[in-house]
Amino acid sequence: MQITILTERELRQCVQLDQEIVDAVADAFTRLANGQAMMPPPIMRVEVLENNGEVDIKSAYLEGLDSFAVKMSSGFFNNAQLGLPSLGGLMILLSAKIGFPEALLLDNGYLTDVRTGAAGAVAARHLARQSIDTVGVIGAGAQARYQVRALALVRRFTRLLVYSQTPERVEQYAADMRQELGVTVETLASAEAVVRGSDLLITTTPAKSPVVQADWLHPGLHITAMGSDAEGKQELHADVIARADVVVCDRKSQAFRLGELHHAREAGLLAEDDPHVIELGDITVGRSPGRQNDQQITVADLTGTGAQDTAIALLAFRKAQAAGFGTQIEA
Amino acid sequence: MQITILTERELRQCVQLDQEIVDAVADAFTRLANGQAMMPPPIMRVEVLENNGEVDIKSAYLEGLDSFAVKMSSGFFNNAQLGLPSLGGLMILLSAKIGFPEALLLDNGYLTDVRTGAAGAVAARHLARQSIDTVGVIGAGAQARYQVRALALVRRFTRLLVYSQTPERVEQYAADMRQELGVTVETLASAEAVVRGSDLLITTTPAKSPVVQADWLHPGLHITAMGSDAEGKQELHADVIARADVVVCDRKSQAFRLGELHHAREAGLLAEDDPHVIELGDITVGRSPGRQNDQQITVADLTGTGAQDTAIALLAFRKAQAAGFGTQIEA
Repeated sequence: MQITILTERELRQCVQLDQEIVDAVADAFTRLANGQAMMPPPIMRVEVLENNGEVDIKSAYLEGLDSFAVKMSSGFFNNAQLGLPSLGGLMILLSAKIGFPEALLLDNGYLTDVRTGAAGAVAARHLARQSIDTVGVIGAGAQARYQVRALALVRRFTRLLVYSQTPERVEQYAADMRQELGVTVETLASAEAVVRGSDLLITTTPAKSPVVQADWLHPGLHITAMGSDAEGKQELHADVIARADVVVCDRKSQAFRLGELHHAREAGLLAEDDPHVIELGDITVGRSPGRQNDQQITVADLTGTGAQDTAIALLAFRKAQAAGFGTQIEA
Repeated sequence: MQITILTERELRQCVQLDQEIVDAVADAFTRLANGQAMMPPPIMRVEVLENNGEVDIKSAYLEGLDSFAVKMSSGFFNNAQLGLPSLGGLMILLSAKIGFPEALLLDNGYLTDVRTGAAGAVAARHLARQSIDTVGVIGAGAQARYQVRALALVRRFTRLLVYSQTPERVEQYAADMRQELGVTVETLASAEAVVRGSDLLITTTPAKSPVVQADWLHPGLHITAMGSDAEGKQELHADVIARADVVVCDRKSQAFRLGELHHAREAGLLAEDDPHVIELGDITVGRSPGRQNDQQITVADLTGTGAQDTAIALLAFRKAQAAGFGTQIEA
């Protein structure tokens, strides 16, 4: 048996955020909604407290696909002091036929960035108004980039408003997005100004206390909240969820434990079986409509699923093979 | 950053079940008992029902060690029809300092076999009578070999009794063990005869209904039950657990969910907080005595822990580096 080892450099060369990836991630949500996914509900988390680090492990088998991924995402938050990136990760692709390893994707988190951006695009495709002009972003890190790049695949917009609590990063972010997407980019002095001025809002912070308030919302707004993927994280005040007309998450069992929905439930504003909360797959499969008019306020709470990892890992492996990339190891 | 890829062939060359490995696994249990381990309690399981397959994922960080392992164990039970082994697996070693991957151990389950055998030896060291003569084994698969090999590192014995429900394997097993360990080996016609005739019993079957009955037990017997590592598996009747004077498991949270203890609790014969159930680490750390006299009946219920995986992965990587093995990939 052979296993193919792929490096971040190789994966960056052959995998870029594009329509095919957005469609593959949408397909993963559809399979989840169709009961065609076996995704272990609890994310496995290994904490290395003494080094301020953690590794999250996700996986999912999607029925009918030849392989499935096991992904490790690392966050070691003392790394910056060593001049190393805090976030990393890798994926293992296993045969769904015989269980043997097929590929090791040493992507250092790149594929996670891409599939996370793609999930935002899937949400926006179904939840944002068809016609938008101004996009707001809170945060200026990697996902602030990937989300906006992905959004540009499903909606046209001409203007980006950005606010970040780390101002030293925001100017570079603005310059990069201006050049990359050809849109005007304005850096604003408050989250409130961004929310009030945007047709679509993306929150991409590691906030542990809520940033976005319900009284800043306005009819027609769509919000994609990316940041909260752990019990202690929260970007939206609980009443933002209560105020929304449509609340969508990637996976209820996760979002009610790790995402914004968790805090809304704790605040007594949302029950786990509330029928007005749906999964993104309910929309991609055609069971729920998503946005129904231009006045609704919609929220997507995305925590990140193993189904997305399997989708991107398979696609990346296929593209890498087509490009002739990788080191073969006889295992 | 570099990652080292090690193959099964390389790992088999530099890692053999020996005293150092038994000690490393004992040390892992000691760290667990000392609260120096961060081991996520639920094993992650991905099922691929249509191909009769499953992958279990385990991990643990042991405080003070430089690296920790994430392990995938696969069981794909249609593989035999394809002429392929049913069981497989691999380990990833991650830096506990910075989270980066250090090594991929493509061991196809070999290291799991070794560390599982080693755990049996740790249990026998503390629970078997000092002086034994006859060892009984139920089952004739890989663990029937590794358990007996490991036992020979901590106890002397001259006679092996074996019973297996797959008689075609048992003769080969008997011949191999006879040659390898220089002991007499007798294949018996029933599990009962093996239990009644043994000073120490090892059960290593995938049984889904109990095999060993309480009225076969006799004073002084030690039982190591290896087979049950999933909700549906059981080798010992629940009253065997109730009858034992000392009941030891590797990890209570697992054994009460996946092991023999699970069935004893379901039968109403054992409470989860029963003080007479202890963890193997309670003994290795010196907090509990293990066997106290030659009349006691002792049972060890071993389900397999991520702590053992981290211990063996670290040791294997160190040995492989010393031997100059492995392919380096610039990641």
